[in-house]
Amino acid sequence: MVEYDHLSNTFAALADPTRLAILARLTSGEASVTELAKPFNVSLPAVSKHLKVLERAGLIARGREAQWRPCRLDAGPLKDVADWIEHYRRFWEDSFDRLDAYLTALKTKEKRHGRKRRKK
Amino acid sequence: MVEYDHLSNTFAALADPTRLAILARLTSGEASVTELAKPFNVSLPAVSKHLKVLERAGLIARGREAQWRPCRLDAGPLKDVADWIEHYRRFWEDSFDRLDAYLTALKTKEKRHGRKRRKK
Repeated sequence: MVEYDHLSNTFAALADPTRLAILARLTSGEASVTELAKPFNVSLPAVSKHLKVLERAGLIARGREAQWRPCRLDAGPLKDVADWIEHYRRFWEDSFDRLDAYLTALKTKEKRHGRKRRKK
Repeated sequence: MVEYDHLSNTFAALADPTRLAILARLTSGEASVTELAKPFNVSLPAVSKHLKVLERAGLIARGREAQWRPCRLDAGPLKDVADWIEHYRRFWEDSFDRLDAYLTALKTKEKRHGRKRRKK
């Protein structure tokens, strides 16, 4: 299972709505911890904890300036996720195709049923 | 952060190497708990626990047969992950471009350095 260790670490870092929101915020540019904490209504220590998790997973990098250590997105590990998920594409496409076919069949059935009713 | 609740639940279910290996196994067809436990060298109760996590996240579905409840992949939630990750594509592509540029610059520098050395 060693092949999945790195990937599952990335997923663990992504398994939190605040961390996902932080990553979304960083897509519009780097930000300090204070800036990141503001919109999320979360305490500074709580945000710092989340940032540590993201940094350990290699999803963000932090500046070296002692006072203002800006965080910036590092999307490298997300490329591995995107590569992994491609193996599953045909499965969700299949299941949506099946759902489509089912709904079409249902509609046809309902139409027929409606016609019969009107005839009565 | 409600918008990320569903997504972070999916990531939590994916945050384990055994569960990722189970999903990979299910891409080649449905399987019973016993069949799933065999290659992973994991106890039946441990596999059952993993399957419950995957089922709760909607990543697998299980048959109704009392004796043999086959598991099959349900890749629907992975489509949401794939849609989400697309917002980050330009970031990892940018960072690989930067790495490329850096390595090219490094090579050019080394070549020049090598030439200078030979001249001496």
